[in-house]
Amino acid sequence: MKNFILDVDGVMTNGQFFYDKNGKTHKIFGADDSDGLALINDMINIQFVSADKRGFDISKKRIQDDMGYKINLVSSKERFSWIKDRYNPQDCIYMGDGFFDNLIMEKVGYSIAPSNADIKAKNAADYITERSGGDRAVAEACVHVLNKFFG
Amino acid sequence: MKNFILDVDGVMTNGQFFYDKNGKTHKIFGADDSDGLALINDMINIQFVSADKRGFDISKKRIQDDMGYKINLVSSKERFSWIKDRYNPQDCIYMGDGFFDNLIMEKVGYSIAPSNADIKAKNAADYITERSGGDRAVAEACVHVLNKFFG
Amino acid sequence: MKNFILDVDGVMTNGQFFYDKNGKTHKIFGADDSDGLALINDMINIQFVSADKRGFDISKKRIQDDMGYKINLVSSKERFSWIKDRYNPQDCIYMGDGFFDNLIMEKVGYSIAPSNADIKAKNAADYITERSGGDRAVAEACVHVLNKFFG
Amino acid sequence: MKNFILDVDGVMTNGQFFYDKNGKTHKIFGADDSDGLALINDMINIQFVSADKRGFDISKKRIQDDMGYKINLVSSKERFSWIKDRYNPQDCIYMGDGFFDNLIMEKVGYSIAPSNADIKAKNAADYITERSGGDRAVAEACVHVLNKFFG
Repeated sequence: MKNFILDVDGVMTNGQFFYDKNGKTHKIFGADDSDGLALINDMINIQFVSADKRGFDISKKRIQDDMGYKINLVSSKERFSWIKDRYNPQDCIYMGDGFFDNLIMEKVGYSIAPSNADIKAKNAADYITERSGGDRAVAEACVHVLNKFFG
Repeated sequence: MKNFILDVDGVMTNGQFFYDKNGKTHKIFGADDSDGLALINDMINIQFVSADKRGFDISKKRIQDDMGYKINLVSSKERFSWIKDRYNPQDCIYMGDGFFDNLIMEKVGYSIAPSNADIKAKNAADYITERSGGDRAVAEACVHVLNKFFG
Repeated sequence: MKNFILDVDGVMTNGQFFYDKNGKTHKIFGADDSDGLALINDMINIQFVSADKRGFDISKKRIQDDMGYKINLVSSKERFSWIKDRYNPQDCIYMGDGFFDNLIMEKVGYSIAPSNADIKAKNAADYITERSGGDRAVAEACVHVLNKFFG
Repeated sequence: MKNFILDVDGVMTNGQFFYDKNGKTHKIFGADDSDGLALINDMINIQFVSADKRGFDISKKRIQDDMGYKINLVSSKERFSWIKDRYNPQDCIYMGDGFFDNLIMEKVGYSIAPSNADIKAKNAADYITERSGGDRAVAEACVHVLNKFFG
């Protein structure tokens, strides 16, 4: 595997969107995921994608500015073609939790869902973490990827 | 079924009200509910109602401005008559979680409660989602509605 | 029973204190508790107490300004004598979740703990709600009080 | 035991980092931990450590300014040597939840993990609390320490 592509909301966060009367204001990130990604960063290309346009500034601040990883705004519907245009899907591990992520999981080399994922995503995933998004799911996935593909 | 009428707090949100010293400031919305509603939007009239006057600006921002659905401020006690004045209750699916929602559920065509709902609402509902409000309950309800009434 | 005395944090809230770099900013209140208290408000004197000095403005805003109930700042250690100075403890129902609330529960007429309470409080309480603080525990307690003492 | 050294995020908090578009803004602390620590404060030296540089102002506000305990910014990798430079590790109780905390737990006199901790930390800990970080885990740990070492 050459690429680890991760969704943000529900994977790096607990999926919650905080709203005040002016719109989306906050997202919740969690512990250890940054340490987990650092473990495998030299072995695999890490790339984040998010379909959340209104909260992209928040995701970008955490993922790109604070953690130093690449993140792109890619809608659910364009996501598989976005992946295919850049990588060989069979060289990709995809981690996602959403309503349409099963469609991507079926076409990539390996797929991971956090325990809080949509039921279709969990049914399609090769591996389901015990922890949920924003509560160490990505850290757990990174240890799994390390052991399975680089052990 | 012609109308899908949904409560907001505890259904589209996890029911929490964030307070600072000046009052209610935030509510928490979740993943996939917007995608779920989009699935059935062409088949059924979607209408939100909320009894939360102090937090109505927050609910309206998310439901109407960001997601594009209709929302009205309707108290718990006026809710059934509000529905009856506009629709044939037997043509309505009602989704709610609150203390008085069982009274509405008994008189509409079909009713859904999220897993976090009040016990009376859960006892009165025709269908209880596995997921809770603000954690994909509405997305799950939309798939259920699609399969049951438009399958 | 003549008086229903309720703690705020962990009973009306989920017990969480939100902090930014300047201090405590938010607390989380939940659904239905206001409706539950309204059910019994004509039958029993409702009084809130809180030991949280730094967050008292937040609690007061919700409990007194928005919901219309009395709230006083009373430390854990002074709480029983505060109650005894004002009421006959045997006429009081006390609902609390905290580290020292068992000491009060042993001396009042009836006591209730939410499911998230400290283990000592749960062991001392006459009744434990199924729901937790900030997630309908008080609404459930009110229905219990209504049925047990005013049924 | 002479020293009780505690991590902050995931131990005194629930591990969540609130982000807005400008960065980390809030952390969530919980009930009773302050009361639990006060129980043993005269018997053992209490010291907090945190690896979270971006949120250190938030942690410091709660731990040092509001609760009155010492807190130092110490990275995961430097943590054991930081402890060894100041204390005899065999005289230390360490409570942590993180990805690398197992490495410290193996070398101190006694170790505690909250129920929400990383699996490696839980496997390495001498004691695992039933409650999770930010939900009375530290209060529970303090009662355990009191009974086990000062009973």
